[in-house]
Amino acid sequence: MIQMYDLAAADPAVRFSPYCWRTRMALAHKGLDVETVAWRFTERDAIAFSGQGRVPVIRDGDTVVFDSWAIARYLEARYPDRPSLFGGSKGEAHARFINSWADGVLNPGLIRMVLGDVFAVIAEKDREYFRTSREARFGAPVDQVQAGREQTVVGFRQSLTPVRTTLEAQRFLGGDEPSYADYIVFGGFMWVRAVSNFELLDASDPIAAWRERMLDLHSALGRNAPRAQQASGA
Amino acid sequence: MIQMYDLAAADPAVRFSPYCWRTRMALAHKGLDVETVAWRFTERDAIAFSGQGRVPVIRDGDTVVFDSWAIARYLEARYPDRPSLFGGSKGEAHARFINSWADGVLNPGLIRMVLGDVFAVIAEKDREYFRTSREARFGAPVDQVQAGREQTVVGFRQSLTPVRTTLEAQRFLGGDEPSYADYIVFGGFMWVRAVSNFELLDASDPIAAWRERMLDLHSALGRNAPRAQQASGA
Repeated sequence: MIQMYDLAAADPAVRFSPYCWRTRMALAHKGLDVETVAWRFTERDAIAFSGQGRVPVIRDGDTVVFDSWAIARYLEARYPDRPSLFGGSKGEAHARFINSWADGVLNPGLIRMVLGDVFAVIAEKDREYFRTSREARFGAPVDQVQAGREQTVVGFRQSLTPVRTTLEAQRFLGGDEPSYADYIVFGGFMWVRAVSNFELLDASDPIAAWRERMLDLHSALGRNAPRAQQASGA
Repeated sequence: MIQMYDLAAADPAVRFSPYCWRTRMALAHKGLDVETVAWRFTERDAIAFSGQGRVPVIRDGDTVVFDSWAIARYLEARYPDRPSLFGGSKGEAHARFINSWADGVLNPGLIRMVLGDVFAVIAEKDREYFRTSREARFGAPVDQVQAGREQTVVGFRQSLTPVRTTLEAQRFLGGDEPSYADYIVFGGFMWVRAVSNFELLDASDPIAAWRERMLDLHSALGRNAPRAQQASGA
């Protein structure tokens, strides 16, 4: 069985990395069983075998792969008879643009709205690392970056225009069926869902309807994923 | 031979529509001969046969198709044995995201930097229509929208991050070879090239190197395209 190191909150059942969620969904798309290992930011020793310090990392037999994009390519090449993630070389090349957009626009936009919510749920031992690194990146106290999000969400929604326009024309970013492109973008929404009850989307947004379809995929893997107490309102 | 209605400047040899350039490049990719017909904004009667008032419009035998995306899909379906534009259904679905990004981010960013240059080269009979419609859209005199572009270009370059990151990893947006995704983005650069000598890109930008490769494709179709005098500095 494939083993996957997966970023976890203080509650080890809560998994919130947008990049790990790309990989979880890709594994499910391929119909591959996976054993996830809860991992915290500061547990670099635990994944030192991968030669670097970030997740997702997968171990498939003797093969170790890190980086969500590299993992998706590995799975597509290693399991070509399972449902395709990319639909060929042009599909993969075009998906890389969507990956670049998500890394450069979507995820930076998202984190500004939930950074404090993330900070509130991570493991105690991760807090100092997280605070120091994020305060350096954002130039503000970690619990204040998301202040005013009821206003900044307006611009964030505007930045989603390429997703919205695409989903007005087709059911999934992959067309009639989901592809890795959908998992790239969905990962960002799972990140927020895991840690926050802040609503990113207007209920009438076509992206909100797509998100519901995505939550139901692969035996409702996303919908059934545990959320932090503050996220679920429990 | 396929006939294509193509937006022209006062000089009928200067063709500057980013959407028409998508179609020109797609036709060349398919190796299809084309006869272009110079068309001006106000010549709606000339394309009334298409049932709408904008270019590109193509006529292929008895078939009339308008809208650059619809034309690309038509060409792919009608000429399946020619080089593929999309590489299958997922490649097409993912390309639609890139199309949406270009329509919603790239092209709106570009026009703010060259609106006055466009206005300066269009046909006399188009000027009143263009001025009125663009001043309504931009809320400013048509020759002042591009003011300060030496500063606004910095933010524009930042908006190209998804293209840049992708081209750092692969030769074309389509992968090793160009696909319709490349033509979508390249159309915007041909728009600017036709009408302006304003330099959009830093010389060291990977997108600049890609643009050179694109200009050379299909017997240097882009590089050999006539530019307005003010653009070429002639």
